[in-house]
Amino acid sequence: MEELVGLREGSSGSPVSLRELWGPYPRVRRGVRGGLEWLKQKVFRVGEDWYFLMTLGVLMALISYTMNFTIGRVVRAHKWLYREIGDSHLLRYLSWTVYPVALVSFSSGFSQSITPFSGGSGLPELKTILSGVVLEDYLDIKNFGAKVAGLTCTLATGSTIFLGKVGPFVHLSVMIAAYLGRVHTKATGESENKSKQNEMLVAAAAVGVATVFAAPFSGVLFSIEVMSSHFSVWDYWRGFFAATCGAFMFRLLAVFNSEQETITSLFKTSFRVDVPFDLPEIFFFVALGAICGILSCAYLFCQRTFLGFVKTNRVVSKLLATSKPLYSALVALVLASITYPPGVGRFLASRLSMKEHLDSLFDNHSWALMTRNSSPPWPEELDPQNLWFEWYHPRFTIFGTLAFFLVMKFWMLILATTIPIPAGYFMPIFIFGAAIGRLIGEALALAFPEGIVAGGVTNPIMPGGYALAGAAAFSGAVTHTISTALLAFELTGQIVHALPVLMAVLAANAVAQSCQPSFYDGTIIVKKLPYLPWIRGRKISSQRVIVGHFMNCTITTLAKDTPLEEVARVVTSTDLAKYFLVESTESQILVGTVGRAHLVQALQAEPPSWAPGHRHLRDLLAGGCPTEPVTLQLSPETSLHQAHNLFELLKLQSLPVTSLGRAVGSVSWVELKKAISNLTNPPAPK
Amino acid sequence: MEELVGLREGSSGSPVSLRELWGPYPRVRRGVRGGLEWLKQKVFRVGEDWYFLMTLGVLMALISYTMNFTIGRVVRAHKWLYREIGDSHLLRYLSWTVYPVALVSFSSGFSQSITPFSGGSGLPELKTILSGVVLEDYLDIKNFGAKVAGLTCTLATGSTIFLGKVGPFVHLSVMIAAYLGRVHTKATGESENKSKQNEMLVAAAAVGVATVFAAPFSGVLFSIEVMSSHFSVWDYWRGFFAATCGAFMFRLLAVFNSEQETITSLFKTSFRVDVPFDLPEIFFFVALGAICGILSCAYLFCQRTFLGFVKTNRVVSKLLATSKPLYSALVALVLASITYPPGVGRFLASRLSMKEHLDSLFDNHSWALMTRNSSPPWPEELDPQNLWFEWYHPRFTIFGTLAFFLVMKFWMLILATTIPIPAGYFMPIFIFGAAIGRLIGEALALAFPEGIVAGGVTNPIMPGGYALAGAAAFSGAVTHTISTALLAFELTGQIVHALPVLMAVLAANAVAQSCQPSFYDGTIIVKKLPYLPWIRGRKISSQRVIVGHFMNCTITTLAKDTPLEEVARVVTSTDLAKYFLVESTESQILVGTVGRAHLVQALQAEPPSWAPGHRHLRDLLAGGCPTEPVTLQLSPETSLHQAHNLFELLKLQSLPVTSLGRAVGSVSWVELKKAISNLTNPPAPK
Repeated sequence: MEELVGLREGSSGSPVSLRELWGPYPRVRRGVRGGLEWLKQKVFRVGEDWYFLMTLGVLMALISYTMNFTIGRVVRAHKWLYREIGDSHLLRYLSWTVYPVALVSFSSGFSQSITPFSGGSGLPELKTILSGVVLEDYLDIKNFGAKVAGLTCTLATGSTIFLGKVGPFVHLSVMIAAYLGRVHTKATGESENKSKQNEMLVAAAAVGVATVFAAPFSGVLFSIEVMSSHFSVWDYWRGFFAATCGAFMFRLLAVFNSEQETITSLFKTSFRVDVPFDLPEIFFFVALGAICGILSCAYLFCQRTFLGFVKTNRVVSKLLATSKPLYSALVALVLASITYPPGVGRFLASRLSMKEHLDSLFDNHSWALMTRNSSPPWPEELDPQNLWFEWYHPRFTIFGTLAFFLVMKFWMLILATTIPIPAGYFMPIFIFGAAIGRLIGEALALAFPEGIVAGGVTNPIMPGGYALAGAAAFSGAVTHTISTALLAFELTGQIVHALPVLMAVLAANAVAQSCQPSFYDGTIIVKKLPYLPWIRGRKISSQRVIVGHFMNCTITTLAKDTPLEEVARVVTSTDLAKYFLVESTESQILVGTVGRAHLVQALQAEPPSWAPGHRHLRDLLAGGCPTEPVTLQLSPETSLHQAHNLFELLKLQSLPVTSLGRAVGSVSWVELKKAISNLTNPPAPK
Repeated sequence: MEELVGLREGSSGSPVSLRELWGPYPRVRRGVRGGLEWLKQKVFRVGEDWYFLMTLGVLMALISYTMNFTIGRVVRAHKWLYREIGDSHLLRYLSWTVYPVALVSFSSGFSQSITPFSGGSGLPELKTILSGVVLEDYLDIKNFGAKVAGLTCTLATGSTIFLGKVGPFVHLSVMIAAYLGRVHTKATGESENKSKQNEMLVAAAAVGVATVFAAPFSGVLFSIEVMSSHFSVWDYWRGFFAATCGAFMFRLLAVFNSEQETITSLFKTSFRVDVPFDLPEIFFFVALGAICGILSCAYLFCQRTFLGFVKTNRVVSKLLATSKPLYSALVALVLASITYPPGVGRFLASRLSMKEHLDSLFDNHSWALMTRNSSPPWPEELDPQNLWFEWYHPRFTIFGTLAFFLVMKFWMLILATTIPIPAGYFMPIFIFGAAIGRLIGEALALAFPEGIVAGGVTNPIMPGGYALAGAAAFSGAVTHTISTALLAFELTGQIVHALPVLMAVLAANAVAQSCQPSFYDGTIIVKKLPYLPWIRGRKISSQRVIVGHFMNCTITTLAKDTPLEEVARVVTSTDLAKYFLVESTESQILVGTVGRAHLVQALQAEPPSWAPGHRHLRDLLAGGCPTEPVTLQLSPETSLHQAHNLFELLKLQSLPVTSLGRAVGSVSWVELKKAISNLTNPPAPK
C-alpha cells in the first residue's frame, strides 16, 4: 500500500520535472517560477484585511459619487422648473417651496418608517459604539437603504434646508464595514474577534469622511478626533490606506465623467502665493478664531437648549411622536419660505447651492473694495462666473447681507437640526464659519484698503483667507477638533495659510472646549446615550480617588458550593448577564464568571428528581455548564485614573475588583462616570 | 475676642465698598471687576501645562533659529575662504577638506568627552523611553550642551558630510521638557506623576520636529508614528499647541531678521496649479513609490549590516573605542575628498548646501527638456538663480549626475551614519528620495516630451512633482511613516499633489514594512536596546497563546510569616527591586509588593538582639517598612494579545500573575518579547 502511494507521488511529480528538463533554459525558468511563487506568497501574505479595506473605500466612493450625481440631476430639474414657470410670483413661490417640502417629508417618512435609527447624523451613536457600548441594531444593514434614500432627498433640497452629508456617510461606511465583517466571519467560519471588528469600524469612519471631501488626511484625523479618545498607530495606517482608496476612486469618477481635467481638490482656490498674508494679520486671524469660539459656544448652547425644548414641549413632542413627516414638512415650509429668492432669500444668497456658497466665500478678491465705487445690479439669473454678486445688495452692501445671513442661518440651522431626517451637520457649520470669516475679512479689507505694508511692498488683504480660517475655526470649535484646519487645506488645494489657520483653530478650540461640550457630546447628553466622560484637566486629585471609594460593592456571587435551589432563586430574581463565580461561600475567592443564559440552560436540563439541598452549583459546572476565566482584575487600591485609562483603552464593559483574591466588588462605566462627575462636582456632605 | 475679629473684618471690608459707592457707576464698575475676575480665573484655570508647552515651543524655536543662524555664518566663512584662497588646487583642496574634518572631529571629541549619550540621533532611545523603559541619565540636562555644540559643528559641515538635524532636535526638546518638568515638581513640591511626564515628553517630541521644519501638522504626526504605538487624543492636542507655538516662533524670527517677507514655508515651490499632473501619471507615481520602497529596503539592510560590521570588526571597533575623533576625522576626510568640487564633487552637485539641494530638486522646470538642445557651461561660481546648473554635465547630462549622486550618496550616507557625532539621518534620506524622484521624473519628461494629453490640453510633465513624491516615499519607507507626505506639503507650501504623493508613500511603506524593520527599529536592534515588538499581522493565533504559557514562574515571594533570617538571605542573594508580598507561606495569596531598598533599611534598623526564628517579616512591616498595593494583576488565562495591549497602552514594566488570589508568576516585557518572537518563529521541538 505504502509503495503504491510512493509510486503515485512519483508519477504525479515526474512529468513536470521532465518537461522542465526538456525545455530551454530550465534553470532560468525554474528561477522565474520560484520568484513568481514568492511574489504571490508575499502579496497574499498581507492578509485579506487590506483587500477588505480597499473594497470598502471603493464601494463608499461609488455610493458617494452616485449620490452626488443623482442630487445634481434633481437640483438641476428644480432650477429648470423655477426658471421656466413664468413670472407669476405665486407659481414661482410654489415651485420654490413645494420641492423641498415634498423631499423632506418623503425623506422623513420613508427613513423613519423603515428604521428609527436612520435619523440624524449618527456620529454621536457611533462614538458610543466605538467606546465599547453595544447599541443593538444600530449597525444593521437594513438601515442602509433608508439612510441612503433619505439622505439623497435631504441633500437634494440644496441650500434651502442647508444640511450636509458627512455624518450619515460615516454611519453608512461603518454599516457596510460591519456587514462585510459579518459576511466574512460567516464565510470563513472564524470566531468573531471584537478588537479586529473595532479596527475595521475605525477605518470605515475615516473612509466615510474621506469619500465626502476627497480628503484622506483630514478624513483619518477628523474621524479619530471625533470618535475616539485613544487610537493605535496600526489603526491609523489602515485608515489612511482605506481613505486614500476612497478619495482616489471618488475623484477618479469625476475625471471619468469629464467633470474634471484631472484629480484635483473639491473647492479649488486661487489665493496669492508669494505673500498670502502679512505678519500683523496673524493677530486678526487669532482674534477671528476667538470670535468663532465664542459664537460656537452660543450656537452649541442654543442648539442643545432647543433640542431639549423640542423633546420636552408637549405640542412639538406629540407632533414628532405621531407624525414626523408633518413636522418635517412644516419646518421645511418655514425654511423654504424664508429662502425664497425674490423675498428675504435675496439677502441670504439663497440661489447658491451649498458648494457655490463655499466657492464664493473662498473667492480671492475683496468684494468690499470691488463694490466701493461701482454697484453691480442684481442679475436675474445666477451668473456662474461671478457667484459673489449674490452676496451684494446696493443698499445693504455685502456687509448687510453677510450679517443678515449669519443671523438668520444661526436659528434656521438650529431649527433644521430638529428635523428627523438623515442629515449631516458639519457642512452647514463649515459654511457658517466661512461667512463669519468673510465678514471680518471684508471689514479688514475696507479698514486697510492699501493692505498692510510690510517690507516695502503693499499687499491688499485677502478676505478669502479669513473665510478659510473662519470655516476651519468655527467647525473645529463646534466639533472640538483641530483637523478641520487640515480639511480646509485639502478642500481648497492650497496650504499657504497653514500657520494662521491653525492658530485660529487652536484659539477657537481653547474657547469652545473650556465652555461647552462638543456638538456630538451635546447630542449624546441630550439623547441620554451611555458614554464615559473625560477626566477634565487631569487634576492630581483624580490620582487620589481609588477604586475602593466608588466600586459597586453589592455584587452577586455564586459559590461552587451554593445549593441549586439558591442558584435558581438568584437567576430568577436578578437579570445580570454574568455572575461572579467564587471558590466557596466562605472564602469568596474569585474563580471566573458564569453566564446567566448558560446557567438557565443547565438548570433546565437538570433532572427534576434531585432532592433539595443535595446538589450544588459544582455539579452543574461538572455537568458542562461553561465558565469564563477572569483575565483582568482590579484591586480596591487601583486609582480612578488608572481604571479610567483601562476602560478607555481596552473598551471594557466591567471589571471585577478583588482583594486578597476575594471578589469584593465590580466596576463598570456607570460607576466610573459617577466617580468622575463627583470629582468635578463633589457631592454635598450629608 | 470674637467681637474684635468681627470689627477688624468690617473695618478692612468697608473702605472698599464705601469708595465703590462714592465713585461713579458703582454697579457697572463692580460688574466689570467681576467679569475680569471671572476671566482671570478662566485663563488661569487651564493650568500651567499650557504655559509650559508654550515655553517649550518658544524655547526650542529660539534654539533652532540661533543654531541655523550660527551655521549660516560658519558656512559663509567656509565659502569665502574657498573662493578667496586662489587657484592653487592644493590650497583649494585643503581649504575644502580641513574645515569639515576639523568640525567633525571637534564635534565627536567634545560631545563624547562630556557624555556618551550625545551621539547619533537619539530617536531610537527616545522610542524605548516612551515605551516605558527607563534609560538612566539619557534625558539628563547635562547632555544638552554637548548635543547643541556637537550638532552645530556637524551641521556646519553642510552637504559634505550630509547629515541632518531632526533626531537630535527631538532629543534636545525632550531633554528640556524633562528638565522643566523636574524643576516644576521641585518648585511646587508635588509628587512625580509618571503619566503626566509622559504626556509632556510626547508633546516635546512634536515640538522638536516642528521647530526644525516649521511644520506643526507633520511634526505631531511624525513624532506619533515614530515614537509610539498608541496615542491619546489628549496628547495630540497638546502636541499641536506646542508645535504650533514652536513653528510660529521659528518663522517669526526669520521675518524679524528680514530673511522673509512674511511667514511662509521653508522650501517654497511654484508648481503649476491648474493641472499639476494628468491622470495616467498616477501610475508612475505609484511605481515610483514601489521603487523607493525597494531601494529603502536595500538601504536599511546595508545600513544595519554595516553598523553591525563596524561594531564587530576588530580594527574599526578598537579605533572607535580608543579614539573616536580620529575615526571621525578619517571618515570626514574620505567624504570631503570625494565631494571636492573640481574633482568627483562636480558630479555630486556638492557646491550646493542641503537646503539648496532640495530647492533645486523641487524646481518646477524639466531640466532634461531645457538641456535637450542647449548645453549651458558649468559656472565657475554657484549661480543662485539657476541652482540646477550644478546638476548638469555636458557629457553625462543630468541623468548621469543624478544617477552618480544616488550611487555615491548611498554608501557615503551609510558611512556617515557610523560617525559618533550628534546628527540626524532624516534630512539626507529626504534629499536622497527627492533625487530618486527627480531622476525618474526627468526620464518621464524626456520619454513624453509633449506631456500626457488629457482633455484636449497638453501639459508637460513636472519632474519636481516626482521629486516631491520620491522624497516623501523614500523617507516614509525608511522610517515606516506616512506623515512624510504631509511633511512634503508643509515644507513646500503646496498641496496640489496630495493624492499621488500619498499613494506613492503608501506603496513605498507597503514594500518596506513587509521586508525590513524601520531605521529606528533597526538601530534599536543593533544597539540591543530593550523594546517590545509588534504582534505582526495581528494573527488570530496570538489570541490562543495565554499568559500561563509564557509567564515567569520562578518568582520570589516573601510571606508575612517568613522568618527575618530567611528575608535577609533572600535580600542578599537576589537583586530584584521589588518582591511580591504574600499573606502566608502556605496560602501564597498576593497582598502587595515590598521594595528591596525599604527591606534592607528596615533590616539594618532592626536591633541585633533578636533571637533567630522569633521575629518575622510581619514585624518589620508593622515597624513601618512600607508596602505597595497591587493595582493590576493578570491571570494565567489572559491572552498574549491582551497582555501585550496592556503593556503597550499603560507603559508597564511588569505585572504579577495570580490564580485564585495566589501569586503564581510574573510577566515583564522580556517574557512578552520572547512570547511574541516565538509566535512568528516557533521554537524547534526538543
